[in-house]
Amino acid sequence: MSETLLEKRHRLMGPNVPTFYEEPVHIVRGQDVWLWDAAGRRYLDCYNNVPHVGHCHPAVVDAIARQAATLNTHTRYLHDGILDYIERLVAKFDHDLAQVIMVCTGSEANDIALRMAQAVTGKRGVIATDNTYHGNTAAVSQLSTRRPPIGGYPDHIRLVPAPDSVDPLGGSAAAQPQTFADNVARAIGELERAGHGFAGFMLCPTFANEGFPELAPGFLDPTVDAVRAAGGLVLCDEVQPGFGRNGQCWWGHDLLGFAPDVVTLGKPMANGHPVAAVVTRRDVMAAFREAFGYFNTFGGNPVSCAAAMATMQVIEDEGLVENARLVGAHALDRLRALEHPRMVQARGYGLFFGAEFREPDGAPAGDFTAALVEEMRRRGVLLNRVGRHNNVLKMRPPMSFSRAHADQAIDTLEDALAAMPA
Amino acid sequence: MSETLLEKRHRLMGPNVPTFYEEPVHIVRGQDVWLWDAAGRRYLDCYNNVPHVGHCHPAVVDAIARQAATLNTHTRYLHDGILDYIERLVAKFDHDLAQVIMVCTGSEANDIALRMAQAVTGKRGVIATDNTYHGNTAAVSQLSTRRPPIGGYPDHIRLVPAPDSVDPLGGSAAAQPQTFADNVARAIGELERAGHGFAGFMLCPTFANEGFPELAPGFLDPTVDAVRAAGGLVLCDEVQPGFGRNGQCWWGHDLLGFAPDVVTLGKPMANGHPVAAVVTRRDVMAAFREAFGYFNTFGGNPVSCAAAMATMQVIEDEGLVENARLVGAHALDRLRALEHPRMVQARGYGLFFGAEFREPDGAPAGDFTAALVEEMRRRGVLLNRVGRHNNVLKMRPPMSFSRAHADQAIDTLEDALAAMPA
Repeated sequence: MSETLLEKRHRLMGPNVPTFYEEPVHIVRGQDVWLWDAAGRRYLDCYNNVPHVGHCHPAVVDAIARQAATLNTHTRYLHDGILDYIERLVAKFDHDLAQVIMVCTGSEANDIALRMAQAVTGKRGVIATDNTYHGNTAAVSQLSTRRPPIGGYPDHIRLVPAPDSVDPLGGSAAAQPQTFADNVARAIGELERAGHGFAGFMLCPTFANEGFPELAPGFLDPTVDAVRAAGGLVLCDEVQPGFGRNGQCWWGHDLLGFAPDVVTLGKPMANGHPVAAVVTRRDVMAAFREAFGYFNTFGGNPVSCAAAMATMQVIEDEGLVENARLVGAHALDRLRALEHPRMVQARGYGLFFGAEFREPDGAPAGDFTAALVEEMRRRGVLLNRVGRHNNVLKMRPPMSFSRAHADQAIDTLEDALAAMPA
Repeated sequence: MSETLLEKRHRLMGPNVPTFYEEPVHIVRGQDVWLWDAAGRRYLDCYNNVPHVGHCHPAVVDAIARQAATLNTHTRYLHDGILDYIERLVAKFDHDLAQVIMVCTGSEANDIALRMAQAVTGKRGVIATDNTYHGNTAAVSQLSTRRPPIGGYPDHIRLVPAPDSVDPLGGSAAAQPQTFADNVARAIGELERAGHGFAGFMLCPTFANEGFPELAPGFLDPTVDAVRAAGGLVLCDEVQPGFGRNGQCWWGHDLLGFAPDVVTLGKPMANGHPVAAVVTRRDVMAAFREAFGYFNTFGGNPVSCAAAMATMQVIEDEGLVENARLVGAHALDRLRALEHPRMVQARGYGLFFGAEFREPDGAPAGDFTAALVEEMRRRGVLLNRVGRHNNVLKMRPPMSFSRAHADQAIDTLEDALAAMPA
């Protein structure tokens, strides 16, 4: 009786280690938008944003291999790699976002962002939405709603209702921006009355985990005004939407058109090599660097910077932001043209798109969406679901995803929907 | 007027970004125990433990390059790489330490270890020594004594006096183990009376940042008894001493001979690729996995596991633990034979050794040690200093350090000491 991979995982990694799919896929090889399992079956990857420029892009692999063979050390010695990369990165930002700390994971980046808000304001209170995820450190995971931390949710964190484009806050899309801002203002008042004071609001500018609701530019303006009026910082988590995924601009905050005080970057930054960063203004950086003696051994090492630089070069050389715009628009057009009684809204930004499913009575169709994800996997397309009720199909492929790939994905979705039991 | 690298760093990274040396070294290439600066000057690396098997070891570089070209994705799909590595890693542990979470940095690992202690005990109180460093996340940096966190040190952290082999706690080496344990027991009582309860004690088993004092096997036995009696966990940070550096066994805790509940690994684990891990018993892992929904996107990815596996293979193939024993003993013998009025104790474990310097009146000779570090750098040898008063010369070279390298380092040290102003 040989041990299965799942049994071996359980023995060596313990219980409750998350996997995708009822029967998890055993992946052995990746190339561009394709993944192969151990049996040689090929899957179209419509889900993974970490391999931003495509799985195993040769330019990134070469950059890693070359630099790993030359030098890999910490930033207590001087090295050109980190400076050249930061110079190129900050050129992509407006709003005086001009200085960077390089770290290894988006969680580390957000953990720093929270402390930057503390350092600037001298306060501890933080606001996030009630269906978000910003990472896995002890401090950052307090913003998650999945499971209460031991000892209960900390009092210095307040969660506000996430925006929604099917059931908008305040009853209409027009009322939603001000209602959202009013809830933030109310939470600020609570934090101040509780004695914590208000340090900042951490948010994903596309509200990705909240179900990437359709929001008009300017949506966050009243909220940003409320945060600024209270002396707090806007902490913008671009770990999911960053690096051109929305197809119109490099960052999610430019899509909505607001000025964050701190931006955090992660997953797609170096195509899978563990690199992340915090980008901020000089005054915020100085306050943080004055308050905390921060050093990250692996952060900004020459190999990480080479991987990040190569990834950025490929985005530009291959015109991947424009590709995200064109292919994303085509995919969304086709998705909107699908007819299915449970599909209530197709939506997205560039190469981050999907559709929300509800039961005939309007209840979230979480089980239906789960079954659809499994059906798509059986048909060779990898994607997943998201949102408060996990009833939003989520497609977020590598940025080299072409019109033909989009057609294959949507054709398969059309067939899968037709084959689903009513 | 061209901008210097330091000016560029300041412009792009902000103030207070730590560097080594009065005039930081601009390193461009590494190989084995050697580093080269931009002017082509070669330095003997007596400091860096991250390139554990030597800078740019070809076996590790090849493993990274090969796997990066094949597949790099997260652990929500199944992959053999992480399971094969964990199987091999846990075989190096006793004390039922049989399950692993792979992450990217030692800080992430320690951040989890603290939550494991919380999950098992239901309590939040943590003890550490008063001159330690366990990482840079918000939660873990609360254990550091460098700068008070905003809002002051949290009440659920208590720091006990670090052991010392020149001025032992309790007045003698014989009294020190019990005195250290008594201080821990007192701190436990304080945490309990304050209502936090006691979750665990986090420590480096060689007290590396505390100045790596000379301690006899069994030193921690009374402390471990006190921790266990109070229902707490022993959280053993092997980020510095792990992977055979001490020359006698794979882990620092085996050197002192105690059984930790949780072990964290980091820096040397994959020769510089950002990989770290938490190793623990099944019961502790289950409690953590039940209490927290933990997932780490980059943690345990196939490239990270290939890099870690190659590093382990090289340690074994090249007999680097035995090398650390032999070369470390030789270096320490030579260090002890040096005569200098300010050198009060030469000490170390395997390839982690150095010497403590004091002024004629017994005061810590921090400035002298700083000048010595600079003098060594001018003579082409990179090392540094550590300890509460930064008066302990610290040598911790890659594990491929040979007898000839040790002779070169100690010869240079002898010359440098002779050239130092009295």
